[in-house]
Amino acid sequence: MAILVVGSVAFDSIETLEGRVDHVLGGAATHFALAASFFTDVRVIAVVGEDFTPAHEAVLTGRGVDTQGIEHAPGLSFHWTGSYSENLNEAKTLGTDLNVFAEFEPKIPDAYVDSEYLFLANIDPVLQARVRRQMPDVRMVCGDTMNYWIADHAANLAIVLRDLDVLLINDGEARMLAGEQNTVRAANKIIAMGPKALVVKHGEYGATAFFCDRTFAAAGDRTSITVPFRAPALPLSEIIDPTGAGDSFAGGFYGYIASQPKLTPEVFRTAMFYGGVMGSFAVEKFGTERLQGITRQEIEERFRLFREMSHLDAESA
Amino acid sequence: MAILVVGSVAFDSIETLEGRVDHVLGGAATHFALAASFFTDVRVIAVVGEDFTPAHEAVLTGRGVDTQGIEHAPGLSFHWTGSYSENLNEAKTLGTDLNVFAEFEPKIPDAYVDSEYLFLANIDPVLQARVRRQMPDVRMVCGDTMNYWIADHAANLAIVLRDLDVLLINDGEARMLAGEQNTVRAANKIIAMGPKALVVKHGEYGATAFFCDRTFAAAGDRTSITVPFRAPALPLSEIIDPTGAGDSFAGGFYGYIASQPKLTPEVFRTAMFYGGVMGSFAVEKFGTERLQGITRQEIEERFRLFREMSHLDAESA
Repeated sequence: MAILVVGSVAFDSIETLEGRVDHVLGGAATHFALAASFFTDVRVIAVVGEDFTPAHEAVLTGRGVDTQGIEHAPGLSFHWTGSYSENLNEAKTLGTDLNVFAEFEPKIPDAYVDSEYLFLANIDPVLQARVRRQMPDVRMVCGDTMNYWIADHAANLAIVLRDLDVLLINDGEARMLAGEQNTVRAANKIIAMGPKALVVKHGEYGATAFFCDRTFAAAGDRTSITVPFRAPALPLSEIIDPTGAGDSFAGGFYGYIASQPKLTPEVFRTAMFYGGVMGSFAVEKFGTERLQGITRQEIEERFRLFREMSHLDAESA
Repeated sequence: MAILVVGSVAFDSIETLEGRVDHVLGGAATHFALAASFFTDVRVIAVVGEDFTPAHEAVLTGRGVDTQGIEHAPGLSFHWTGSYSENLNEAKTLGTDLNVFAEFEPKIPDAYVDSEYLFLANIDPVLQARVRRQMPDVRMVCGDTMNYWIADHAANLAIVLRDLDVLLINDGEARMLAGEQNTVRAANKIIAMGPKALVVKHGEYGATAFFCDRTFAAAGDRTSITVPFRAPALPLSEIIDPTGAGDSFAGGFYGYIASQPKLTPEVFRTAMFYGGVMGSFAVEKFGTERLQGITRQEIEERFRLFREMSHLDAESA
């Protein structure tokens, strides 16, 4: 079933210890859509400028992603410049040129209104809420956010959180959002803000899902999970570019969920593994290059590796 | 089968955000021995002073730990003073009074020489090597170390590492020992120094085992494991005192291995889980209090929880 994602389609200029690239295709919605496209249909709502060429669009359509919701506006696309030092979990933002994104008014094409899964990628929570209101009947809503919105747009973000099935953020964002250092207490506070589940991404250490004590009724299924779930990440000897790893995690996670008829605890857990798998591919090359090149077979092989890395009875798998 | 552990039996004065304690029983060998005692016979080699009373000894003997290798010397026991702030992975050492430990000459009682498993807890590598030489016929040797020995006693430590089956250290120690930030590259460098396997402890994020590409022949069994293995840690809403968590991990890990007839990949993996289980208990109270109070049933319940937290098919367990 189809996922509608709203978020940035952008260009990134990135410097890591392994090299640098200029104006490569990026953006949260791009990474999310490419990762999710291996599992299910994906539709994108975003705005781009005149520097977004048919070749860029072909990166998405080549993976079957529906791009009719990508609005073309006069001017330049959103452009992010950042660098990473030893600590690959933390990007240093050197420049954020919103460009056409500054005046973005998300419009939902008619062909998108039957989307059953909604993903609110990391953008202004005002825009997230606006899209959410236009899609009242979706089965499930997941979302992301970042420090900037947590710090300076808390009231707007609170509206989005109230109505979310799953929030996916990283450790630092979780601590900041909750105002609490301890991960479990932070998770409880965040879940009290609305999300039925919280997925905290730990970078190279994997991710943990926390669930509300209430019945987890996402996607219309009544599924009770209260024990946290930990998915591993793949220990990698070389991380070329961590940009988009979190969005790729979300894409693998949500893409897998949307591909399944019912959200069971096992589907949620398996989705956490696919999230880790897609995140582990994303960082192997700059930008979206690695996500463009993988095959479903490579994904399944890496999934088996994740299982072997974490399961007691790995041999009998 | 019996584990012989050499290391510190000491007193700790600890301050955490949750409170403070003065001169409570601690030391790496103490935490290790208590944790391992739930799985197998444990024998301790250490030195204590006149402040170590029969009541302190009873903490160990009450758990069946053989204390005849604990030498009593005139003076005071080793005493460590430390504190933890928000970052519970890093202790701030406020004082280290070696006392009777300064002149420690480990002697192995006759009744200990048939020990089949040796654990070299975190002490001067010169002492670790000396004990190792006196126990040439053990089935398996595991060990720990810390920043201080890595920085200033590298040559002595290298001798210990050359001959180790499993080294258990934390992230920071692994990076420092390898002079390398990337965990996988650090693990490869460390394994090239001698250990057949490296267990890197990540605090609240669990632990990862890395294996040499050579056949892993620990304990005389020929077991080939090359894929890393990740064990979870329990997300805890309250961490009272992290002191001894790493030693308790090592005790659970090694105790379980020593309790099994053969070291298979599944035994190694299960041992990683029991390590996490014992570490998670250790931090729930100050000093050794929690380790003294647990039951084997609680251990098994928590082991099942660890499995449920990490396995895709947790329901069918």
